[in-house]
Amino acid sequence: MKYLLLVSYDGTCFSGWQRQPAKRTVQLVLEEAGEALFHASCPMTASGRTDAGVHALGQVVSFGAETKIPASRLAPCFNRLLPSDVRVRASAEAEEDFDLTREAKKKTYRYTAYFAPTELPLAARYACRLSARPDLAKMEAAAQLLVGEHDFAAFRAADFTSKTSTRTIYSVKLEERHENGGTFYEIYVTGSGFLYHMVRILAGELFAVGCGKEEGITRAFQSGRRSALAKTMPPQGLTLMEVDYGRTLF
Amino acid sequence: MKYLLLVSYDGTCFSGWQRQPAKRTVQLVLEEAGEALFHASCPMTASGRTDAGVHALGQVVSFGAETKIPASRLAPCFNRLLPSDVRVRASAEAEEDFDLTREAKKKTYRYTAYFAPTELPLAARYACRLSARPDLAKMEAAAQLLVGEHDFAAFRAADFTSKTSTRTIYSVKLEERHENGGTFYEIYVTGSGFLYHMVRILAGELFAVGCGKEEGITRAFQSGRRSALAKTMPPQGLTLMEVDYGRTLF
Repeated sequence: MKYLLLVSYDGTCFSGWQRQPAKRTVQLVLEEAGEALFHASCPMTASGRTDAGVHALGQVVSFGAETKIPASRLAPCFNRLLPSDVRVRASAEAEEDFDLTREAKKKTYRYTAYFAPTELPLAARYACRLSARPDLAKMEAAAQLLVGEHDFAAFRAADFTSKTSTRTIYSVKLEERHENGGTFYEIYVTGSGFLYHMVRILAGELFAVGCGKEEGITRAFQSGRRSALAKTMPPQGLTLMEVDYGRTLF
Repeated sequence: MKYLLLVSYDGTCFSGWQRQPAKRTVQLVLEEAGEALFHASCPMTASGRTDAGVHALGQVVSFGAETKIPASRLAPCFNRLLPSDVRVRASAEAEEDFDLTREAKKKTYRYTAYFAPTELPLAARYACRLSARPDLAKMEAAAQLLVGEHDFAAFRAADFTSKTSTRTIYSVKLEERHENGGTFYEIYVTGSGFLYHMVRILAGELFAVGCGKEEGITRAFQSGRRSALAKTMPPQGLTLMEVDYGRTLF
């Protein structure tokens, strides 16, 4: 039988999603919990791999298992076995031919940064500090250039190649709020899919534009060159919020 | 010369403010930084001691030192020496007879809890999970009973005695917001001062009342008995937000 888990994790103490020798990864702790629960090897797939330090609120994970536990009861069973920085928020059965990667329609990521005169210990785990206060109107104008179908070749880390670098961004939303002694800026980006480091690169460009850099998005689309854009933002500000399959899974 | 620091810390990995043998405390790391900076012992006082696991956004700390560093430059000097879970947000000179404890007019604490079907790893460090969804209107009604000058004898942990247990609460404000897959509830309480565990006890009572417990505040004021009130909330939801001295210190 095929099952799905809706998983949240604090990425701080994980070397990302994917299993690697001698590293603590989310896939490792989930597969180990599955093995303990089903007394059998329990390989898992995620809707998207997240990097070291990146968080997730709504990661979707699938695996096959033979068990008499009702699908909706799997979540609490996993949670009794998992460390406190990973939680299964819901569990459900899936069709045998359900393909987690191919059937994902949209993904939403959030990038959080803040401006404050000094670093804020209460924000450091989930946000990055900006050394200047960004102009939200400038960020907003640059954000709208990203929306639509584009070749995002310039928006990916050099060490990674997908078959195609064309992606569709459906929306980029900016939010500002005052909290814990700082001004927080959140970028919510929803797209058909994202290249390696794409969200961190586009967030870096938007914050840099907000802080006075000349907009490089137009040039990046034309030239496909990474150098048109600002620095990649660090991982701790990034959270995979939701993977949308166009229907209710849980 | 007497100096003041405005200090923020993530209390998770500290055994509270106060120095204790063989424990990592906020006072210890600040005094060690002061010693390294001034090449002399540097005893410090805080406007209020915080317990193990409790956070601070605006703790005020004072100390005496002989230094040529301008007062406003002390903050970055301290920050270069401090671990990343403590930051000095501002520094200033104070009058020699300035008494940090006596001159504090008001203190504001925040208590954060959330309701969600399972624990949320992205909230666990700074908030406590409620097992039911509280009714904000009931909490609001109970909160208003706390405002004013009262004998808060029932609102303190048994192992602590102040000279008097009369305190004034100026305001209790409740906020609700949806974030990271849960509904978050924040209690902001401003008072003349607080007894040991007082904020965590009153937060526990307000959340319990919101979740259906009969209001015990009236009875607690009459009888002075702790047993009229619900359980003390855990420390990680608590943050010392601000200490108000009736004038600008920084």
